[in-house]
Amino acid sequence: MTYTYERVTTPSTGLRLHLNENTAGPSPKVVAALQTLGREQLAFYPAYGDAVAACATRLDVDPGELLLTNGLDEGILAAAVAAARDRTIADPEALVVVPAFDMYAACADASGLRVIEIPSDPDFAFPRRRVLDALSGRTRVVFLTTPGNPAGGCIARDDILAVAKAAPHALVFVDEAYADFTGSTLLDEPAARALPNVVIGRTFAKAYGLAALRVGAIVGAPDTLAPLGRVIPPYSLNVCAAVALRAALEDTAYHAWYVEQVRESRALLQAALERLGVRCWPSEANFVLADFGSDARRVVDGLAALGIHVRDRSRDPACPGCVRITAGVVEHTRACIGGLEEVLCGAGS
Amino acid sequence: MTYTYERVTTPSTGLRLHLNENTAGPSPKVVAALQTLGREQLAFYPAYGDAVAACATRLDVDPGELLLTNGLDEGILAAAVAAARDRTIADPEALVVVPAFDMYAACADASGLRVIEIPSDPDFAFPRRRVLDALSGRTRVVFLTTPGNPAGGCIARDDILAVAKAAPHALVFVDEAYADFTGSTLLDEPAARALPNVVIGRTFAKAYGLAALRVGAIVGAPDTLAPLGRVIPPYSLNVCAAVALRAALEDTAYHAWYVEQVRESRALLQAALERLGVRCWPSEANFVLADFGSDARRVVDGLAALGIHVRDRSRDPACPGCVRITAGVVEHTRACIGGLEEVLCGAGS
Repeated sequence: MTYTYERVTTPSTGLRLHLNENTAGPSPKVVAALQTLGREQLAFYPAYGDAVAACATRLDVDPGELLLTNGLDEGILAAAVAAARDRTIADPEALVVVPAFDMYAACADASGLRVIEIPSDPDFAFPRRRVLDALSGRTRVVFLTTPGNPAGGCIARDDILAVAKAAPHALVFVDEAYADFTGSTLLDEPAARALPNVVIGRTFAKAYGLAALRVGAIVGAPDTLAPLGRVIPPYSLNVCAAVALRAALEDTAYHAWYVEQVRESRALLQAALERLGVRCWPSEANFVLADFGSDARRVVDGLAALGIHVRDRSRDPACPGCVRITAGVVEHTRACIGGLEEVLCGAGS
Repeated sequence: MTYTYERVTTPSTGLRLHLNENTAGPSPKVVAALQTLGREQLAFYPAYGDAVAACATRLDVDPGELLLTNGLDEGILAAAVAAARDRTIADPEALVVVPAFDMYAACADASGLRVIEIPSDPDFAFPRRRVLDALSGRTRVVFLTTPGNPAGGCIARDDILAVAKAAPHALVFVDEAYADFTGSTLLDEPAARALPNVVIGRTFAKAYGLAALRVGAIVGAPDTLAPLGRVIPPYSLNVCAAVALRAALEDTAYHAWYVEQVRESRALLQAALERLGVRCWPSEANFVLADFGSDARRVVDGLAALGIHVRDRSRDPACPGCVRITAGVVEHTRACIGGLEEVLCGAGS
């Protein structure tokens, strides 16, 4: 079996609620910062000192505990490649709790790791027992996501710590791509930070709206990050990404506004789905997973016909019948709810 | 031994002739194109169809034979990771002819390949015999550079073909980062294109001046590129890079002007070095390697004191006493030549 990330078809118009992007875009200050870039800055290999310092300050970590990455994808790849490096391990494994972001399995497989998929417990709960049982000397990396994707629930800290302690020989990669929307982060958990095999991934694609600029970060002890850092080319962020990151981090008011929009949108969406009799799961991320059962395809197509694009996850055996809907700007969410009502109840027909 | 890319100290002011960047910057049309980017485009995962098509047209290849990369560094990494993937090879090797760009060994080592360094023949000539002798079943990737770095000479096509034919089980990565400045490229060599194990790397950092934007490309048969493509995250170029690439490719007059500047600069620099009694090598790239012997450090420091930054390669055992000087805009080259005269002859003292 080959694991790949399937790029979804990107609509050229309409409301994009299918890739968990920021539906408002980044702070206007990001656009302004990019406008200042001149020809010389575009032609020279970029320096990252200021961007690293600003990011470390925001995440409240030491600059030496932080690596900026070309989107968090690059951090995931670095973890997989570093985990596969030791040739004395004959059959190294990557553990992935599914359903999950496709990039874990894709990067692990591309690096020569065997992908071990562990199904979630019912209602996408973290399968602590089965993860612990799956750990062995072959386990080189464990990918965890909190809040999770596609359901949006968090993994209890105690579960993450238990896995990390039970697998000291493996890297535990905790993907916190959506942590801005819950406020909870392992970064402020001393017990996790003290474990040398834990790396925390963050992205600026979601709350900060920099998806097109590709900026992620991984945080861990310097010695833990070192083998991952060797996989990341020395100039992997482009100058626009570095400049945009600084501008985005400075506009804390904008970030706070967007996180609040997402929280309100999430609540609106969940209430609407309940009203419509559609099962959904509590989410702490910028999306909601809804189970439309055999109506899934009709809902996705019906919304698309209205110019509203959502993510069809219904054919994933780990979440049959499910559709993932991004919760962004409240106005966009209201449009989506209107569309759902129209498709499901024929309100507009 | 650990192989790493050592990031050189970046001067904040002065004339940068140390990293083979474009000393004029990219076409002004690149800056203009970046100014058009709005908030939505910055927040959405980028599409690459237009950029791939434009690049394929320029390189005269099929879009399916081309992968855009986040700088050519990412292409080198992808080659190394793909080469290391098969765990049934107990002790896989990467062959690197030295002196060379540090990234080959750094990426190979980070991926778990054993790095086999093969010294160049005298005067940096390609050591065909020794490369052929070093090939074995363990050889998974061979990194070749033409024009070479740091000396700037080309490898004969016949030599490249001989290596590729002798190692059908290995990927032969032909780095043509500097090919714009010689006009010769393996892309127009049917015999090379017909070999399924040859991949050609290109960058837009040099002639097109996009170093800070990070745009490279690898070209090969679709089946050959596939395992490398799996290592490259689906959104590895940011939107600024994609937009800049298209604008840069469109301004063919600017590209032609810069290539001509480099050729004139190269000739001026070589003539000046000869006049000063400094040995240098014929270069077809945008730099010249000069052997200052025991004066190397004094020359580098003396030029730096004048605000002119060149690359000290003197401590590399493969090119002792050598300094690499970028040949960019003629006016910049004349300033460097003036500086060299001052440092070596005390003309200004």
